Amino acid sequence: MKPISLRSVIASLAALAVTFGLLLPTAAAAQADPLPSWNDGPAKQAIVNFVKVTTDQSNPEFVPPEERIATFDQDGTLWVEHPMYTQVEYCLERVPAIVKAKPELANVEPFKTVMSGDREAMAKLPTADLEKILYATLTGMTMDDFRAEVAKWIAAAKDGHWKRPYTELTYQPMQEVLSYLRANGFKTYIVTGGGQDFVRVYAERVYGIPPEQVVGTMGGTSYSYDQDGKPILTKDPKLLLNDNDAGKPEGIHLMIGRRPVAAFGNSSGDQQMLEHTGAGDGARLEMLVLHDDPTREYAYGPAEGLPDTKVGTFTQALYDEATTHASIVVSMKNDGDRVFAFE
Amino acid sequence: MKPISLRSVIASLAALAVTFGLLLPTAAAAQADPLPSWNDGPAKQAIVNFVKVTTDQSNPEFVPPEERIATFDQDGTLWVEHPMYTQVEYCLERVPAIVKAKPELANVEPFKTVMSGDREAMAKLPTADLEKILYATLTGMTMDDFRAEVAKWIAAAKDGHWKRPYTELTYQPMQEVLSYLRANGFKTYIVTGGGQDFVRVYAERVYGIPPEQVVGTMGGTSYSYDQDGKPILTKDPKLLLNDNDAGKPEGIHLMIGRRPVAAFGNSSGDQQMLEHTGAGDGARLEMLVLHDDPTREYAYGPAEGLPDTKVGTFTQALYDEATTHASIVVSMKNDGDRVFAFE
Repeated sequence: MKPISLRSVIASLAALAVTFGLLLPTAAAAQADPLPSWNDGPAKQAIVNFVKVTTDQSNPEFVPPEERIATFDQDGTLWVEHPMYTQVEYCLERVPAIVKAKPELANVEPFKTVMSGDREAMAKLPTADLEKILYATLTGMTMDDFRAEVAKWIAAAKDGHWKRPYTELTYQPMQEVLSYLRANGFKTYIVTGGGQDFVRVYAERVYGIPPEQVVGTMGGTSYSYDQDGKPILTKDPKLLLNDNDAGKPEGIHLMIGRRPVAAFGNSSGDQQMLEHTGAGDGARLEMLVLHDDPTREYAYGPAEGLPDTKVGTFTQALYDEATTHASIVVSMKNDGDRVFAFE
Repeated sequence: MKPISLRSVIASLAALAVTFGLLLPTAAAAQADPLPSWNDGPAKQAIVNFVKVTTDQSNPEFVPPEERIATFDQDGTLWVEHPMYTQVEYCLERVPAIVKAKPELANVEPFKTVMSGDREAMAKLPTADLEKILYATLTGMTMDDFRAEVAKWIAAAKDGHWKRPYTELTYQPMQEVLSYLRANGFKTYIVTGGGQDFVRVYAERVYGIPPEQVVGTMGGTSYSYDQDGKPILTKDPKLLLNDNDAGKPEGIHLMIGRRPVAAFGNSSGDQQMLEHTGAGDGARLEMLVLHDDPTREYAYGPAEGLPDTKVGTFTQALYDEATTHASIVVSMKNDGDRVFAFE
């Protein structure tokens, strides 16, 4: 009979643990870095510390699980928004089908400009014209047809710069924050200026965020019956809530009914969401993503020498506010070890 | 040394189980009735069978956990709606405070009638007048003030018939359905014609349903700043969505973005929600509560000899539809062993 070795005791205990469905965490697993794509620095430290204090029952800043609500802007915060919002790209690419169905639109602005294929002219279209395109391409069909169209498009369409599906252009450091927060009992929400119905089509697959946790710009629907008497929902050209600026806290209230404890944005359109989050009691996390990496992604916004642009505006005032108050600026260049998963 | 008895072996195994945090289900526990307040019958059987098939991976009607959405009307389905909706009671009781703040309303209808205390005259107020009372008492204040007012009222107010808090007048059989579905991975939602903000104040405590799972009639809010520069949300007299009739599937789409697999209602205002739920593929559960118990609760609606009323109308047509299609009618009189937990 062999003498009992420490090794065999450990093996027996491990077997017993397996038998009883137990997980024995190793020292390595317990210390695994939850944010491996983040460089060490104040931003990473702020996230880790926030999770630590809000999930520790003995800490005065403990937050009960049901109140762990974290909200994320999408365009420019979770994925690339340059040179054009992905949803606007979708709408522009839908125009030929719309014009085919209604040929009388071919010579009417703004459809004429879009049909010309002149990207520069399209980029200069005024907001009112852009709205006409959005209404023409996002409403007037059943919800089922809309979902099918978007799903088909998003599976095939590619970004002009990286030549990859838009859904691969999510920021790996932010994907890690989403997972890290969820692993610690937070409910993660998208709160986007983009269309709620549009983002819902892919949010579960791309971010692990289910449709009921997508808050966006909301349009009305009409319940009716098709010719076979089957109930249908049709997308109406009626705006219920513009989920930008003050619309973000209003949309959060409407859809969630609780004040978030953490919020992530990147532009002036996120300012009110960040303020609203920060105005609550106890531990708060408000982060602003600064696009300052022209090599790995884009540089725009208020950082010294960077041009301000129409898309993803992050004003100097918001930047100043962020750096003098509790908000934390996340530098794409310095805080991320990488920008994309495919790097 | 005592001989090893079966009893001591079982005790040792039980101790081991406790040590390893295991739960050994006993035969009794495994067979415990999840719906103890329900009498045996087709309604109870339908619920148990639905849960069985939708949660069994080997069953063709299996529903993945993320799609297990169940929606419940509130008034008349989860709690008493007679002789007046609880929220209307709240609004009427708020009128004196409104008139005190704006004395010029004292002689203006419909405030004059409410101030007179004449319940019969109040019950006869036309819808347009009722809306004036709702806007006056439910809007124009900050969300925080509104929540505090409702919480204070609901903690103290009592129903005129049972002399108990309204929050005790929930139907015990339906509370058991909520718990049973949640224990089987369903997300339970309230989908009410009542005010979304109103019901959210107490839904978590009373039904275990968090604010983000309350869908109701939705009013607009405005984000602004108080005199100290602190962000506030104010309730506006602006209707975003009337969550009744066709508004129910529209509200479900807006707030959840998925079609429910189970829905529970009791009136014509729930018909479209039930239809919408039933129009999906796979296993479906659509239930209609019939108030036919004048002894333990109230009798109203389409059952033979029962008077039809303005509140909680359940038309003969809906009843006929229910009894000829897949929907199942739940009789308060015959399907429930009890109506309230306090019986």
